[in-house]
Amino acid sequence: MTLSHGSGGKATRALVEAIFAAELANPILDPLDDAALLPPAAGGLVFTTDSYVVKPLFFPGGDIGRLAVCGTVNDLAVAGATPLYLSLGVILEEGFPIADLRRIVQSLRQAADEAGVRVVTGDTKVVERGKADGVYLNTAGIGRLRPGAQLAAAAARPGDRVLVSGRLGDHGVAILVARAELDLESEVRSDTAPLHDLVANLLDAAGAGVRSLKDPTRGGLATALNEIALAADIGIAVEESQVPVAADVRGACEILGIDPLHLANEGKLLAIVAPEYATAALTALRAHPLGREAAIVGEIVSEPRGMVFLRTSIGGHRVLDMLAGDALPRIC
Amino acid sequence: MTLSHGSGGKATRALVEAIFAAELANPILDPLDDAALLPPAAGGLVFTTDSYVVKPLFFPGGDIGRLAVCGTVNDLAVAGATPLYLSLGVILEEGFPIADLRRIVQSLRQAADEAGVRVVTGDTKVVERGKADGVYLNTAGIGRLRPGAQLAAAAARPGDRVLVSGRLGDHGVAILVARAELDLESEVRSDTAPLHDLVANLLDAAGAGVRSLKDPTRGGLATALNEIALAADIGIAVEESQVPVAADVRGACEILGIDPLHLANEGKLLAIVAPEYATAALTALRAHPLGREAAIVGEIVSEPRGMVFLRTSIGGHRVLDMLAGDALPRIC
Repeated sequence: MTLSHGSGGKATRALVEAIFAAELANPILDPLDDAALLPPAAGGLVFTTDSYVVKPLFFPGGDIGRLAVCGTVNDLAVAGATPLYLSLGVILEEGFPIADLRRIVQSLRQAADEAGVRVVTGDTKVVERGKADGVYLNTAGIGRLRPGAQLAAAAARPGDRVLVSGRLGDHGVAILVARAELDLESEVRSDTAPLHDLVANLLDAAGAGVRSLKDPTRGGLATALNEIALAADIGIAVEESQVPVAADVRGACEILGIDPLHLANEGKLLAIVAPEYATAALTALRAHPLGREAAIVGEIVSEPRGMVFLRTSIGGHRVLDMLAGDALPRIC
Repeated sequence: MTLSHGSGGKATRALVEAIFAAELANPILDPLDDAALLPPAAGGLVFTTDSYVVKPLFFPGGDIGRLAVCGTVNDLAVAGATPLYLSLGVILEEGFPIADLRRIVQSLRQAADEAGVRVVTGDTKVVERGKADGVYLNTAGIGRLRPGAQLAAAAARPGDRVLVSGRLGDHGVAILVARAELDLESEVRSDTAPLHDLVANLLDAAGAGVRSLKDPTRGGLATALNEIALAADIGIAVEESQVPVAADVRGACEILGIDPLHLANEGKLLAIVAPEYATAALTALRAHPLGREAAIVGEIVSEPRGMVFLRTSIGGHRVLDMLAGDALPRIC
């Protein structure tokens, strides 16, 4: 990659045609104009964005391309939307290998196919050596709100159950192991996956009882629960023994002195569900390949407001706060 | 700025609330959820994205925040859309001063107000010292297609006139002078401005005759014209003497040995207009504060296809190619 690939002139066009247009071809993107014309869509739209600065770019279970699709698709899915379109902004460091870029874009394309979304518009910039770290991506996503979907963090109320779709912390540990920051043999792979289909299953089966959905990424389950507790002005009690965490992840957390509930996930769903729908919701999650290890891990309580606490296996209580400090930079 | 501001936990929330939520407040953004719910909109939508890596961050006539609004708004405007919503992705370098971030976000807010758009969703990441250059921004934009707007680079046909809305190259020279790469006293200011209103004036007055619009940013007028020549499979003849270029810009280009038509603009419009609408189009552009120096600078010809050439003031012809090489990295 050279700076001329970011000039907007001939070299940019050649790069865009050889990599992005070739790998991501679809009728909306193909004109390669500066903006994409979308077909009219009925109903409400949902709009979201994330930048991706994960280190390393390739890790067990995924890479920055797959992450850039799944992260944004999942933000749409947990808002109750069917993901439709993505934009793709690429910031490349001078000297970055074209072969790596192609591999990332191919992975991105495969994830987009899994998620049923199309990349319809994009932009490429190149910065000097030492002014980035290989490549940073940004995707923005547009989805169509499912009819009747009424999800909000503020909607949680006492008695609601807290469900998670599977084991927590895999992404965080996979990244740390890939960075060789942990002196650990581990088979843990990132869970990076698009959750749109799992969410659709859940809403089809128990939609009337689903108050709020989140994908607990940066900051982990603990941060996502604290956001809900603050937004809804309720408390959340989590049964520590019910939270699914892989043995390798638990071991890594002990070495690091961090809580697995602060680790990032990139393919897990957090659902707050009315008690009378909890069983139907759990069944719907477990019926999906991405939710086989789903569990009910806690409940909404009226006090203490705005706080999350763990009921530990030895019968105690412990405040579960948002992630503080910088334990895990560049996890996504 | 510390890495913990990018953790997704407490520090991220504090930063987002203190800077982004405070400066950009609006009812769609305010819930600070991971995705924004947009009201239903009739008609076709237009979607675009750009990343901004301009160096320096602050320059005469603008800064990266103003640029990040105008660049994306202008991509929507030249597609024939009324800009509505922006997303904002922020990649910060560890150690970046919070005061500078606030200044950038305030400028961004002011430009958004000028352009009539709202930032409705966003994301903040922090990377280690030496892995970025202060701050990089990405904005994606959604606009509503104007009824009847049928603009396409491929629509240009022989006889059409080529109009520009004012002096070319100001942004490029302002950036170069601000970088002190030019040993030059200059009062040139970037033209960074939202073009939505100028475009609306033009389409109201001469819409039926407007074939194609572009904002000639990276790669300048020359690159934008070459894109049109390729897409429409026609030739474009530019009258060199008719192209408005400020004396300071012309002088800087002579020193640098570059063509002002390869310099970036961030507040100029290129319009391809049917001949019978050319006068109405020119009048409409000149009636707007951003188009006072608009000019007809050339015409579409049938041969040579896919090429742009200059008719020079001494009666010769010269091929005007896309920008090649890396003369001007990080201009936007």
